[in-house]
Amino acid sequence: MKIAETPQAMRDLAEELRRQGKSIGFAPTMGALHEGHISLIHAACAENDVVAASIFVNPTQFGPNEDYSRYPRTFGADCSLLETAGCDILYYPEASVMYPGDYETWVSLEKLPDHLCGLFRPGHFRGVATVVLKLFQAVMPHRAYFGQKDYQQAVVIRRMVRDLNLFTDVRVCPIVREKDGLAKSSRNRYLSPVEREQALVLYRTIRLAIDRITRGERNAEKLLEEMRHFISRGVPDAKIDYVSIVHPDSLEDVPVAEDGSVIALALWIGNTRLIDNHILGADFPYGEEK
Amino acid sequence: MKIAETPQAMRDLAEELRRQGKSIGFAPTMGALHEGHISLIHAACAENDVVAASIFVNPTQFGPNEDYSRYPRTFGADCSLLETAGCDILYYPEASVMYPGDYETWVSLEKLPDHLCGLFRPGHFRGVATVVLKLFQAVMPHRAYFGQKDYQQAVVIRRMVRDLNLFTDVRVCPIVREKDGLAKSSRNRYLSPVEREQALVLYRTIRLAIDRITRGERNAEKLLEEMRHFISRGVPDAKIDYVSIVHPDSLEDVPVAEDGSVIALALWIGNTRLIDNHILGADFPYGEEK
Repeated sequence: MKIAETPQAMRDLAEELRRQGKSIGFAPTMGALHEGHISLIHAACAENDVVAASIFVNPTQFGPNEDYSRYPRTFGADCSLLETAGCDILYYPEASVMYPGDYETWVSLEKLPDHLCGLFRPGHFRGVATVVLKLFQAVMPHRAYFGQKDYQQAVVIRRMVRDLNLFTDVRVCPIVREKDGLAKSSRNRYLSPVEREQALVLYRTIRLAIDRITRGERNAEKLLEEMRHFISRGVPDAKIDYVSIVHPDSLEDVPVAEDGSVIALALWIGNTRLIDNHILGADFPYGEEK
Repeated sequence: MKIAETPQAMRDLAEELRRQGKSIGFAPTMGALHEGHISLIHAACAENDVVAASIFVNPTQFGPNEDYSRYPRTFGADCSLLETAGCDILYYPEASVMYPGDYETWVSLEKLPDHLCGLFRPGHFRGVATVVLKLFQAVMPHRAYFGQKDYQQAVVIRRMVRDLNLFTDVRVCPIVREKDGLAKSSRNRYLSPVEREQALVLYRTIRLAIDRITRGERNAEKLLEEMRHFISRGVPDAKIDYVSIVHPDSLEDVPVAEDGSVIALALWIGNTRLIDNHILGADFPYGEEK
């Protein structure tokens, strides 16, 4: 696996590959890799001649009181995982190179951030859109791979790509879950054993909603009320940022839960903020618990 | 000359050229071409295998009370001029394709627009940065050519290119002037014969400043006072948006006019807003009047 540490080094590799007519698949990550990330590499390997990943803990997508400094950094293990998965190139730039002292250019979206996580993390999607655009300029990917777990992020990136004419196909890969249903996340490693058990409430809340919908309840307000009640009864300490049923593209609340609508939620388990989601009508793993 | 009317058609041409190892020079324009634009095409021809230009009157860089709808459109003449000058590809997209109804992604800079024209045209440089980024994604230029007449625009684009890792060399070409000194501009055709004579005050004000500096006056405040006085005595009706002496990169006012400092001004002659500038120490055409 080649490692490019500067935008110029990465761009040089990308230009050479494109001159050779090779297709480039790209998975941007913040490291602390788990099977969710690796599934992106596998998807990229299946569709492209060459696969690149980036590891960059992007400071501009963290709020001032968020976990930028304590975000897990596991570079050695990440490299092994990427190499084993079939990644050809790792783009690993430094923050001071990505954002020099007089940096002042931002990519922002007007409406999509005014939903879900965006309401609780002001500036987050500006940071995400900006860094993904920058990464794309260096990597020049034909296809880019994102995880569905960060559902709003995928919608934001897809819109940015369309609006700015970026000519990269955005692929969204299914959520990878632990055996008991918890969505894989780099932040799961913050959880104590007790919190790890409590964290299951996200998965179980989605399962509850699917059960109710299967039995005929489609009224979003009623479903959301049941979900919130389920959370506060099961994990009274859990702080709910949001529990929502939204349109898959606009992210606006829908009154009726239909196939294609997205159930999305964000909870605090102790000091750890966890998110999960499900597109109604898609497969959802049942009965794997324990 | 090939004409590409969609982002996809333009990108296809650009990808093919890059596969062939050809270098692409690019001059973005809003049409209504004059010798200033043509000098950009000539500069691009001298340094690149293939030269592309765009004609796109970008709605998002005009304010609600500005001249978007009456901006001159001279497509037939523009095509002849470009072809004669050696342009190989014209990118000519429609506004509805560049900005579909639910468009919502913007590129903006934090500080550079808070100077000079940016103070009088809120949102202008957000529109400029956004459209230039979009044009670059379709044209994939190795080098892009801008006129020094829009000095702040050139500084904004240069910063955006650096910040967003765009890997396009930004070339800034000298101002082209009429024989009597007026900077060439698509907006000059708005001027009545009387206004055309009055418009010379921009050039003459710069010449005045250069004269004073040559004779030893370097205090910016004194120079600016003399320049403003000269304007209001010569063309009492001219509304001054600004007369400034600024740092060439930061665009901040400087207390002392030094080599490299930029004299910049924007005036309204009747209903026409005109700008001009000069980098101290560079050549300035003298004594060509009449």
